[in-house]
Amino acid sequence: MATPRVTVWHEYRHEKTHKEVSDVYPEGMHTPIAKYLREQGLDVKTATLDEPEHGLTEAVLAETDVLTWWGHMAHGDVKDEIVTRVQQRVLDGMGLIVLHSGHHSKIFKKLMGTTGNLKWREANEKERIWIVDPGHPIAEGLNEYIELPHEEMYGERFDVPAPDELVMVSWFEGGEIFRSGCCWTRGRGRIFYFRPGHETFPTYFNPEILKVIYNGVRWAAPHAIKPTPVVNVKVPLETIRS
Amino acid sequence: MATPRVTVWHEYRHEKTHKEVSDVYPEGMHTPIAKYLREQGLDVKTATLDEPEHGLTEAVLAETDVLTWWGHMAHGDVKDEIVTRVQQRVLDGMGLIVLHSGHHSKIFKKLMGTTGNLKWREANEKERIWIVDPGHPIAEGLNEYIELPHEEMYGERFDVPAPDELVMVSWFEGGEIFRSGCCWTRGRGRIFYFRPGHETFPTYFNPEILKVIYNGVRWAAPHAIKPTPVVNVKVPLETIRS
Amino acid sequence: MATPRVTVWHEYRHEKTHKEVSDVYPEGMHTPIAKYLREQGLDVKTATLDEPEHGLTEAVLAETDVLTWWGHMAHGDVKDEIVTRVQQRVLDGMGLIVLHSGHHSKIFKKLMGTTGNLKWREANEKERIWIVDPGHPIAEGLNEYIELPHEEMYGERFDVPAPDELVMVSWFEGGEIFRSGCCWTRGRGRIFYFRPGHETFPTYFNPEILKVIYNGVRWAAPHAIKPTPVVNVKVPLETIRS
Amino acid sequence: MATPRVTVWHEYRHEKTHKEVSDVYPEGMHTPIAKYLREQGLDVKTATLDEPEHGLTEAVLAETDVLTWWGHMAHGDVKDEIVTRVQQRVLDGMGLIVLHSGHHSKIFKKLMGTTGNLKWREANEKERIWIVDPGHPIAEGLNEYIELPHEEMYGERFDVPAPDELVMVSWFEGGEIFRSGCCWTRGRGRIFYFRPGHETFPTYFNPEILKVIYNGVRWAAPHAIKPTPVVNVKVPLETIRS
Repeated sequence: MATPRVTVWHEYRHEKTHKEVSDVYPEGMHTPIAKYLREQGLDVKTATLDEPEHGLTEAVLAETDVLTWWGHMAHGDVKDEIVTRVQQRVLDGMGLIVLHSGHHSKIFKKLMGTTGNLKWREANEKERIWIVDPGHPIAEGLNEYIELPHEEMYGERFDVPAPDELVMVSWFEGGEIFRSGCCWTRGRGRIFYFRPGHETFPTYFNPEILKVIYNGVRWAAPHAIKPTPVVNVKVPLETIRS
Repeated sequence: MATPRVTVWHEYRHEKTHKEVSDVYPEGMHTPIAKYLREQGLDVKTATLDEPEHGLTEAVLAETDVLTWWGHMAHGDVKDEIVTRVQQRVLDGMGLIVLHSGHHSKIFKKLMGTTGNLKWREANEKERIWIVDPGHPIAEGLNEYIELPHEEMYGERFDVPAPDELVMVSWFEGGEIFRSGCCWTRGRGRIFYFRPGHETFPTYFNPEILKVIYNGVRWAAPHAIKPTPVVNVKVPLETIRS
Repeated sequence: MATPRVTVWHEYRHEKTHKEVSDVYPEGMHTPIAKYLREQGLDVKTATLDEPEHGLTEAVLAETDVLTWWGHMAHGDVKDEIVTRVQQRVLDGMGLIVLHSGHHSKIFKKLMGTTGNLKWREANEKERIWIVDPGHPIAEGLNEYIELPHEEMYGERFDVPAPDELVMVSWFEGGEIFRSGCCWTRGRGRIFYFRPGHETFPTYFNPEILKVIYNGVRWAAPHAIKPTPVVNVKVPLETIRS
Repeated sequence: MATPRVTVWHEYRHEKTHKEVSDVYPEGMHTPIAKYLREQGLDVKTATLDEPEHGLTEAVLAETDVLTWWGHMAHGDVKDEIVTRVQQRVLDGMGLIVLHSGHHSKIFKKLMGTTGNLKWREANEKERIWIVDPGHPIAEGLNEYIELPHEEMYGERFDVPAPDELVMVSWFEGGEIFRSGCCWTRGRGRIFYFRPGHETFPTYFNPEILKVIYNGVRWAAPHAIKPTPVVNVKVPLETIRS
């Protein structure tokens, strides 16, 4: 497989309006993710909400093998036509990594068919992400768990289709659990949802978290991007005698 | 569990414009389905596209445990707000049985997140539906396969999420196969897609096919219909010390 | 479906040698389970390790729709031929509910093909069992979680095949999580593993826990018990011309 | 990932006793498979039943990332201790590709927990293997289907656990269908069952079939081989206060 071409998409609004966010991510949350993936040898671009077409033109998508998505306060500002474009590209084979509050993004809900609802709490509590499928490619090189001293809590019930593969489950200090690392295939495209990444914590500087994102990109990278044919097969493959 | 309340929804357009359809289904395709389900003791209503709100008012849905759906030539005439209403009801627990050309209905595509595309051929060929999960409730009382002497062909690749449970796979005389009986859960709701039922064949008079629809209704009937909470859990269940 | 006939199988050794166990379960751990299931209207027998053929004769199994299994200190004393007999009956359609330390029973390991290994700790800690699939029949009538003030901890990685349906995940006070309610189908038989039930705690007197076992029995009850045919199909269904 | 080290295991009995087999595979069925995988750059050994320890010593397995398995007439001659050794290695992460009549091998049945039973017919009929999951790594580079002019038929019901991923379904001229390309994970190990390969047909010289086996090896190659810990976690990760 050729080197995956990654587009790290970021809403990039919190950093411009919330000092507590820009203090943690002075160059935006997308920057440490893009930097890490580049260091692993991937071919990485970034794109943000306020660029024309949200930075997700047909041309950009045509050269993207895997798209990562972080959004939160401005899900509603993402144009429906761009969402449809991204969905079609995923169905044709592009990988998609949905991060944290992306659970409520239009693209995630559209691909899942569910609300993406969950419980949450901002209490700076401890999260321990347990690997429940250690043979999965996304678990490559990880220990039995990843510990984050301070994160926002997400709790079940997480309203998503049962994952095709469940790789990680989080324990939260305040008493909840959450299916934190979930894989689905839709069309030819592979989708990985990865829970951590609240905007006021330096989660995307954590090397283990970055490794999971990298593993997710590798897992989601397509073998080929092509549409599923819709064909009226007028000439049957075999003779029909009935 | 109480007796499931079923609404058999039907597009009911072909019968009004195509004599070859009304010859087979003089009272509409929904009628033999509703009749059979009633004979099994279920509480059955029907609803059709050209009724106000397509017969799917809030009141009707509130009293529906399982909805069956057949549509084809007029998918585009189904109003988006009704589709959203049905989707929400499914996510809250209502069962949904999608029949044949319903694979391209708005509601099915919205719940699946995929195109629902497939191959097809109208050549009146033989279909043999094999049971691959004989212990499944939907397979109750069936033989190893169901044979239909004349049906429209649907062929893979069928662009749907991998079924949570695959119950049936069809063999077609012309050389194709198809995942014909597929189960998914979305939110609290259970969805069963069942392939056969081209409008020019008396498929919905076939007692084995009707039995599958009945089994599907029983399987999809909810235990309780309630929304998934979206809660900011401000007071944690456990003391947070980190 | 007829009323399921249940056999509650119990190792019944701890109670005879450990006072701390017989203090909690003076009539054996199987007794409150059998009593509850009977009160729900099921047809219930019990069987124990030290009976002839462990109480699982061909005749008993032939009249059992669902078998529940608790064992721990004497897994090795269960005869291989009885295990093979139970396995065959499950493959033919009998439901099996495996409780707690049954994760290391011969029958569970044989049906799973894996070691059933896990982490554990006896520290009388709090367990909170979260429902992650609230639409599942086994979750019928439950709240969002079940809380047990004192239980043994089981932690991931639990070495089982990915469940066909994951219904519950436990949070433990000491920092672990566990896939606590797991469903599989093997052959025609349905298997439900349910984690709680350490022998020194009154877990099987807890009405919510008993309700889960009851729901599990209902879910696992077969529609028909019959072997999968192994047939040399000498006469093809269709003419072969190639 | 480093280059996978493959051991192509073959029963190698038919070729010695059945001229119709040795005419097709004069060097044994394992030879064209091993040759092809070597040509793709993999590190390939072969091993056969009649070698000491069936060629599967601890040392050989320790240097095997993926094992392929073809057996038929002599399943019963494979020693139980070797089967247990291979099973443990799979659970620790080794990939396993089970070919054709290997559905009844001890190792496959032990890992599946089911009988592996199916229907069959030796009638030299046409098989068409349809790809139902075109985005799957095992489908890389394939067309919509693979056609084999002459093969033995295998028909449903195939008594295996529902595959974690179903990649291919076969159509047979005589009227059956079969889940032909099935993926499971057991422990850390990935297992791929691939149907074609009757000993009297040159199936393992077919470049598309060989490509599927190669893709299967790539998919099943482990990221790391290590046992799942069985640990009494005496010191909890978090303070227990209940």
